[in-house]
Amino acid sequence: MPQPFLSIRTLLAVAAAGTGLLGAALIVSGAVTVPTASAAGGSANGVAVHSATATLTDAQIEAQNQMAVNVMNEQAMQPKVLADGTKEFDFTASTFQWALYPGKTEQAWGINQQVPGPVIRLTVGDKVKFVVHNDLPEPTTIHWHGLAVPNDMDGVPDMPVPPIPQGGFYTYSFTVTKQMVGTHWYHSHYDDDFQVDSGMNGVMIVDPADTSTLPHHDEDALFVLGATKVDGVDPENAFTIDGKSYPYAPQLTVHKGDKVLLRLVNTSAESYHAMTLDGYTLTIVAQDGQPLPDPEAVSVVSIAPSETVDVTFTANQTGDWLFHDTIQGNLTNPDDKLDTLGGAETVIHVK
Amino acid sequence: MPQPFLSIRTLLAVAAAGTGLLGAALIVSGAVTVPTASAAGGSANGVAVHSATATLTDAQIEAQNQMAVNVMNEQAMQPKVLADGTKEFDFTASTFQWALYPGKTEQAWGINQQVPGPVIRLTVGDKVKFVVHNDLPEPTTIHWHGLAVPNDMDGVPDMPVPPIPQGGFYTYSFTVTKQMVGTHWYHSHYDDDFQVDSGMNGVMIVDPADTSTLPHHDEDALFVLGATKVDGVDPENAFTIDGKSYPYAPQLTVHKGDKVLLRLVNTSAESYHAMTLDGYTLTIVAQDGQPLPDPEAVSVVSIAPSETVDVTFTANQTGDWLFHDTIQGNLTNPDDKLDTLGGAETVIHVK
Amino acid sequence: MPQPFLSIRTLLAVAAAGTGLLGAALIVSGAVTVPTASAAGGSANGVAVHSATATLTDAQIEAQNQMAVNVMNEQAMQPKVLADGTKEFDFTASTFQWALYPGKTEQAWGINQQVPGPVIRLTVGDKVKFVVHNDLPEPTTIHWHGLAVPNDMDGVPDMPVPPIPQGGFYTYSFTVTKQMVGTHWYHSHYDDDFQVDSGMNGVMIVDPADTSTLPHHDEDALFVLGATKVDGVDPENAFTIDGKSYPYAPQLTVHKGDKVLLRLVNTSAESYHAMTLDGYTLTIVAQDGQPLPDPEAVSVVSIAPSETVDVTFTANQTGDWLFHDTIQGNLTNPDDKLDTLGGAETVIHVK
Repeated sequence: MPQPFLSIRTLLAVAAAGTGLLGAALIVSGAVTVPTASAAGGSANGVAVHSATATLTDAQIEAQNQMAVNVMNEQAMQPKVLADGTKEFDFTASTFQWALYPGKTEQAWGINQQVPGPVIRLTVGDKVKFVVHNDLPEPTTIHWHGLAVPNDMDGVPDMPVPPIPQGGFYTYSFTVTKQMVGTHWYHSHYDDDFQVDSGMNGVMIVDPADTSTLPHHDEDALFVLGATKVDGVDPENAFTIDGKSYPYAPQLTVHKGDKVLLRLVNTSAESYHAMTLDGYTLTIVAQDGQPLPDPEAVSVVSIAPSETVDVTFTANQTGDWLFHDTIQGNLTNPDDKLDTLGGAETVIHVK
Repeated sequence: MPQPFLSIRTLLAVAAAGTGLLGAALIVSGAVTVPTASAAGGSANGVAVHSATATLTDAQIEAQNQMAVNVMNEQAMQPKVLADGTKEFDFTASTFQWALYPGKTEQAWGINQQVPGPVIRLTVGDKVKFVVHNDLPEPTTIHWHGLAVPNDMDGVPDMPVPPIPQGGFYTYSFTVTKQMVGTHWYHSHYDDDFQVDSGMNGVMIVDPADTSTLPHHDEDALFVLGATKVDGVDPENAFTIDGKSYPYAPQLTVHKGDKVLLRLVNTSAESYHAMTLDGYTLTIVAQDGQPLPDPEAVSVVSIAPSETVDVTFTANQTGDWLFHDTIQGNLTNPDDKLDTLGGAETVIHVK
Repeated sequence: MPQPFLSIRTLLAVAAAGTGLLGAALIVSGAVTVPTASAAGGSANGVAVHSATATLTDAQIEAQNQMAVNVMNEQAMQPKVLADGTKEFDFTASTFQWALYPGKTEQAWGINQQVPGPVIRLTVGDKVKFVVHNDLPEPTTIHWHGLAVPNDMDGVPDMPVPPIPQGGFYTYSFTVTKQMVGTHWYHSHYDDDFQVDSGMNGVMIVDPADTSTLPHHDEDALFVLGATKVDGVDPENAFTIDGKSYPYAPQLTVHKGDKVLLRLVNTSAESYHAMTLDGYTLTIVAQDGQPLPDPEAVSVVSIAPSETVDVTFTANQTGDWLFHDTIQGNLTNPDDKLDTLGGAETVIHVK
């Protein structure tokens, strides 16, 4: 039986408790991408220590908000194509500053400096390699949620492969099968609660070889529903769409009459999301990548942690419509004294 | 992009913090319906301030409990019928004292002095007007959840219509379409978490023009599953059926052999409900107003915030049967030191 | 209308508050099975008081862990068969020490000294009697969740039968009908939140008279998903499979190619579980004992409190695969300073 593993992140934090936070920063300095002592972060006993002082410039924040728009638009990462046709993706996991909402930047743990990580788009039959470099201050893995990949490619620590150590790398390789068609996601399976909520996750969309078998949609958009614990508060207190809380969450614009596909992925480690689009009924057409035999019309889409749900609607009413969580606790940004909107909420404009 | 809005309730509360609670009462006195200084309520930083001293007479409590029975029995509000046949409903939103369970009266924010608000029953083809007067101490709106009404009738603040200011009114008008058939609900979409949990919600049932197309039921009852935060406690700590916690929740009596339709509506801002009827299996026949192609037999009906679920059962076993939440935390009244039953629970008697 | 009832457990605790914990132990000593003063437990105002000092020997812990393996393997309790063919099961409810995970033994309230209680396996047409002796320090009942048994056999206090008093017994008897086929559970319906989470629950599987009508499975395993509140912490903070938290939770071994049926039962009083099997997709074939007309393939099975869900998979990939909650808060054992795995998690080995 595999043994329970120690969290190196915790060990570092315990060390830091004796030496001051600067000590922690020095110990993990190889992984620090923002050159402030406090930005190294880490955690003590599972509680994240976020930097209170790190800042991003307005231009950096705008660039990060644009990343969220790109995720929403499913702009996929371009792989390197090897001689035998294998598609190779380079992932580097590291810590970096990430703007959540106005006035709040937290230390993220993510892939290629973005939260969520790169959108991966594959086709049945693809041979793929993911070379994952670990520049985090503790081990990590990548797990391909819900997909039948070989045991040693599945990213569960010590089952049978040990996690990727700090400074190390591992290559996950598999062939994309028919069973993988649909909306899926990948995430760290090491220190899951902390790493996944801190940003170690991303979406993988798999198309069939013959895409003409898919239903036609005029718009195809991706909303990754995340959560995190800012300022070390437990339980999750900040809720995001494509890595951003309202009003930073990306807004979608469609045209009247468009048939729209929304791919909803709950990457929150602990929280359910229950999403509604004001003015519309949504039709659930797939769950966890599997098409439903009887698509179901609902006003609320309830999504458990790790689930993916594809919904469609026809944009037959012009206007600006809130797309938002119906769990109201997910709709306020932490430390907001003014009761403004926040959290897992955005606007879909029908022109 | 619409701007995040300030909560006037919060601004009042901030003002009150400097001047004492009496100051708050004076500021909002135009909206106060119970003439005690402390009854004006309001909130500070999103935490409701409930009156600890207001009281209702036993006769008033009994009258309010009868309102819950009327909601259960789907006694609908009678509209004024205009010359062109339009049905006009007058809503007045205000604050008032509301008895939750023995010994606990809280300040409600609701429509026409009842929680939930009036049951609205409409028929496809109806032209309707809702004239909503705002006597609350902050802005409000009415949102028709899950229904395709025009953008300016949808009650989302500033999308594109501003919320109804304190002392103002707005007229929502639309035509009832086939897509609206079934069990739905309406609620404030301003300061949602607080206002909805405080009572700014109600149920709207839409029938087809030809009701002979509907399945026959001997009994048709409505259970609105709500939640609120009494004594300023977060998260939600009091759970209600038709506005009342057990033992004030209305009890249903049916006859042996009756085919019974229960309409379940989760108006809680944050909490799931998972309902069971002891001694029976329930069949889910519709969700969010949409009939299921394959009705599903279950012992537990899980309902996300904002969802509506219609279930049926045939009352083939006599007895007194608990109808209750299986989330046990929803089954105790706050401050109950004696572990008695409470919350989202009632009895269905089969005679 | 039935009256709200007092919790005797609470009254004992109130008494104990005046006399010291030893006083409580003396009062309930008739029910104490482990001879330490502090092991009597009880609660004050609904908060369980668990023993911090009671210990079990390693052999006792190993024997208890074997009980969990037996539950997983659906080893059913053997009834006494009466002259008329009635199957009689003797249940004794009592308190005892129960090992949850390494280093943590808590006082359980359970049936026949095991958590969950005995697996009951019945066939349509069986006449059954459950003679339930109450050696707990407060009243109790047994409720047959989701099953249509007569009102006086349904185990809801005072509807119409009073709960079984301390030191008393009650005989539940009914005939097993076709409607009862499938995976179900039984539990105390008195002081539910505390008693169910403390172990007063078990699984009942009902087969049709002609089992050849059931789909064939090479393996048929039972995972009871529980929760409890250790050290008096609220909300639920320890999560179990078949009564044990990882790494004590039983592990399943199947052979490559096996068609496997997993019966999942959420006995948690408050918590949802959302289960995933790494490397596999699961197909939901029944819910609350009812077969689904359209089996649904998912990567996450969301289960409300009191629900049962049957899932299947074909073990076509060898390896050691985590079967775990995707609600990460359910995956850590309380007081674990080292971020190790825990909670509602185990391993399925495909050889």
